[in-house]
Amino acid sequence: MLWFDGALIAGTRAPFDLTDRGLTLGDGAFDTALALDGRIVFAEAHVARLVAAAASLGFAVDPIQIAEAMRAVASAFPQAAIRTTVTRGSGPRGLAPPAEPRPMLWASAAPVAPGFAFAPLRLHPTAIRRNETSPTSRLKTLGYLDAVLAAGEARAAGFDEALFLNTRDAVACAGTGNLFALFGTRLATPPLHDGVLAGIVRGEILGSATAFGFKPEERSLTLPELLRADAVFLTNSLRGIAPVTAIGMTVFTDHPAMAVLIAALRAAMAA
Amino acid sequence: MLWFDGALIAGTRAPFDLTDRGLTLGDGAFDTALALDGRIVFAEAHVARLVAAAASLGFAVDPIQIAEAMRAVASAFPQAAIRTTVTRGSGPRGLAPPAEPRPMLWASAAPVAPGFAFAPLRLHPTAIRRNETSPTSRLKTLGYLDAVLAAGEARAAGFDEALFLNTRDAVACAGTGNLFALFGTRLATPPLHDGVLAGIVRGEILGSATAFGFKPEERSLTLPELLRADAVFLTNSLRGIAPVTAIGMTVFTDHPAMAVLIAALRAAMAA
Repeated sequence: MLWFDGALIAGTRAPFDLTDRGLTLGDGAFDTALALDGRIVFAEAHVARLVAAAASLGFAVDPIQIAEAMRAVASAFPQAAIRTTVTRGSGPRGLAPPAEPRPMLWASAAPVAPGFAFAPLRLHPTAIRRNETSPTSRLKTLGYLDAVLAAGEARAAGFDEALFLNTRDAVACAGTGNLFALFGTRLATPPLHDGVLAGIVRGEILGSATAFGFKPEERSLTLPELLRADAVFLTNSLRGIAPVTAIGMTVFTDHPAMAVLIAALRAAMAA
Repeated sequence: MLWFDGALIAGTRAPFDLTDRGLTLGDGAFDTALALDGRIVFAEAHVARLVAAAASLGFAVDPIQIAEAMRAVASAFPQAAIRTTVTRGSGPRGLAPPAEPRPMLWASAAPVAPGFAFAPLRLHPTAIRRNETSPTSRLKTLGYLDAVLAAGEARAAGFDEALFLNTRDAVACAGTGNLFALFGTRLATPPLHDGVLAGIVRGEILGSATAFGFKPEERSLTLPELLRADAVFLTNSLRGIAPVTAIGMTVFTDHPAMAVLIAALRAAMAA
């Protein structure tokens, strides 16, 4: 089932213009949100980020339509991962966008396996660098092949997810989430300019950390520094907070802060 | 008009699975070739490169079907740019590919403006780096946003194309083509490991340069070195050889070698 062209349709197939730049050039962005009991968790933040992503690529999408698409799909699939995609729409051959782009918007739902959220995972550092020199490193664009390839490597090596450094050797993120490192009560996460998506859960944690006794810091981290942290965790909208139990050969044992942060996020998600 | 699902169809719209990973993740590759008098120029090399690109992403596409798609479109549009796209096909949510991918293949044609091929152009160095740490830097994948954004910057600054350095400050390529620099009789082009597509025209020139009195070299180039070259040119399958007349503020005057190389390439294209 899809929300496509203003309505819910059965299946995942739709009449689509194969000159759509989302398909030909990855010229678009997407959002992944969690539906709980038919409600989009942190809905406003998700809508605002997708609108901002399109704007930063140079085309406009209507926040009301995005919210409607998300809501419509969540009504049909009350417990699900909701993916909303926007593209610049079709265009002539070449890189130059059409003068008057006609953006496309659709949304879909997928089941989230029970136990997926908040489950611990193990990270495999990849040799592919996150390219922080590109604005796309701070967006969920349709060009996700680096993450696909690195995730494949990670799986082949017996890990759950890839860990990316950027081109200046700073820690960036996991293939599908932001990273946090705890040092005492200091809770550090890489700044956006290190090639990092402004994750919705990342923002939530940065905003609420002080209330729970942590000192949030957006700062660059090296890999050796990350490996010395008291605890490391990944955040995204479907996993919530995923405690990292290993990065390569380095093992992390359970840390009491994790339960505090997870309880706080669960409460915020339910609010 | 498209070649899609084994046949030529009118228009550019087709029933398409919006969970196709080419669209959701940029998980696919494409090829751009030139049709002259209904014949694909350097057809075998184009087919082989697209098959190799898919293989390096981990899925198989049939070279015979690719050749058929290209030929069918070129028969309908004898003088055109032929774009052939392959994707890994549809898949479930997430990065992991399906166990048995069902790749998609289609081809389309677009007019090439008279005077586009062999026309000189001006390059604008972009701050976005070509990420040579990623295998995708050596492929024409569906994730082309960096090139789109850099081309927009270049146009806004009054230039024709963007010039990319890689993350180690070596010259990589233009947004849509390979680069060559002439130093006396030495004809240098960045090696693939600097984050460069194995361009078909690039390969043709490397293979034939010696016969025309040049010494071909695949080696890393810095930007200052490139700016000191006797001549610089861009190559791709539609432009052929495009003499570069400026890189930022540095101007290049016409060089007699250009006419020799262009005549040689024209002959090879017509063969």
